[in-house]
Amino acid sequence: MATNDRLAKLDQRLARVEDELAIQRLLASYGPLADAGLGPQTAALWTEDGAYDPGGVARAEGRDALIRIYHGERHQGLVRRGSMHMTAPAQVSIHGDHAEAVGYSMLALNAGEQFTLLRASINHWTLARTPDGWRIVERTNRVLDGSPEAHDLLSRADR
Amino acid sequence: MATNDRLAKLDQRLARVEDELAIQRLLASYGPLADAGLGPQTAALWTEDGAYDPGGVARAEGRDALIRIYHGERHQGLVRRGSMHMTAPAQVSIHGDHAEAVGYSMLALNAGEQFTLLRASINHWTLARTPDGWRIVERTNRVLDGSPEAHDLLSRADR
Amino acid sequence: MATNDRLAKLDQRLARVEDELAIQRLLASYGPLADAGLGPQTAALWTEDGAYDPGGVARAEGRDALIRIYHGERHQGLVRRGSMHMTAPAQVSIHGDHAEAVGYSMLALNAGEQFTLLRASINHWTLARTPDGWRIVERTNRVLDGSPEAHDLLSRADR
Repeated sequence: MATNDRLAKLDQRLARVEDELAIQRLLASYGPLADAGLGPQTAALWTEDGAYDPGGVARAEGRDALIRIYHGERHQGLVRRGSMHMTAPAQVSIHGDHAEAVGYSMLALNAGEQFTLLRASINHWTLARTPDGWRIVERTNRVLDGSPEAHDLLSRADR
Repeated sequence: MATNDRLAKLDQRLARVEDELAIQRLLASYGPLADAGLGPQTAALWTEDGAYDPGGVARAEGRDALIRIYHGERHQGLVRRGSMHMTAPAQVSIHGDHAEAVGYSMLALNAGEQFTLLRASINHWTLARTPDGWRIVERTNRVLDGSPEAHDLLSRADR
Repeated sequence: MATNDRLAKLDQRLARVEDELAIQRLLASYGPLADAGLGPQTAALWTEDGAYDPGGVARAEGRDALIRIYHGERHQGLVRRGSMHMTAPAQVSIHGDHAEAVGYSMLALNAGEQFTLLRASINHWTLARTPDGWRIVERTNRVLDGSPEAHDLLSRADR
């Protein structure tokens, strides 16, 4: 292969790796921002019209709706007691300027002498490359409750 | 260094990085497939004659034996209630067409109002590059119980 | 761009990726070494004069002080019962020969039939490139208790 083509191929492969790490960083920053109660900074992980479907409650669409979740009394109550919204290692797939990820998240809450594991969930994220970097287009989260909906999200890890 | 050599060296380093990310993705997909109760898809993360030594029960060798674990009554009972077999970030080491990884896993089970953390374990995986990508050759898992066996697996993180 | 410049640029980008993965491996090896009770090996993840400020107790500075933590009666008591000091996926930022990371950690303890989630914390690490690879310069850890100090560490995930 000509030098130019080899350079272009290496650049393409490296860009894919950089994309995967950038998405890992984005997902890793979600919990700390949410647990600090920072609504706008948490919402900024989504695209402008990005959506969050957490299951059980209404789907939030757009950054204003997302901010209302993180500034809402329910979420701020967690923030005051001390909460951990941890995102586990996710399986990330890059498709050009789009990507998806499948992985667990868990919510632990400070209960004084120990923490209570309130929720363990499976997530499916779709993401898009934007001028500001990778952002979440849609996050679907379902508590692990043995339901067909949860099992459907889990099975998206099959590639 | 000549351009050809520099290109070859970059290609080699990049391939190592791609291998590490591929193994991370493989490990991240285990939990969702297991918690969806998908026996063949979970077993396909191993090589044809791959093995799983979970401790306490018999070592499973080969994909049919692995499928029997995930289709078995004990595992399917977890799947019905809602379980999370989470694989934590692992320390991955690549050696050509072989690799190993050391890291924690945990099993949380839906208990209605909260989740119970049933098991926290240390794992050692050996992996091999196959025509279908990286696969698990052997997974050894020991519950963290202070035993010499668990401490031996933990100490494999020392490099 | 000239071939030489393109090669140099690829090398620089790839080195950044390798740094990020090396730091992920370093952080992933902490828990297993600590839970095996291996003082010197755990302390060796820090620079010679590296420090750990775990909150609540005195800041440990230098490897001897770190070894005293991991060989101390409190830590060894955890090791004997079976403990998991898990480091969650962290947001890593590389700045030349320095780096920082923000992420959760949790401590689960074997309680017989199940594990108790004793502590969920937020961490901020500063790291440096040394002749032996990346090492921790300072680790600050605060339990998630709704305090301004914890929220300040959480908010460092905002970039």
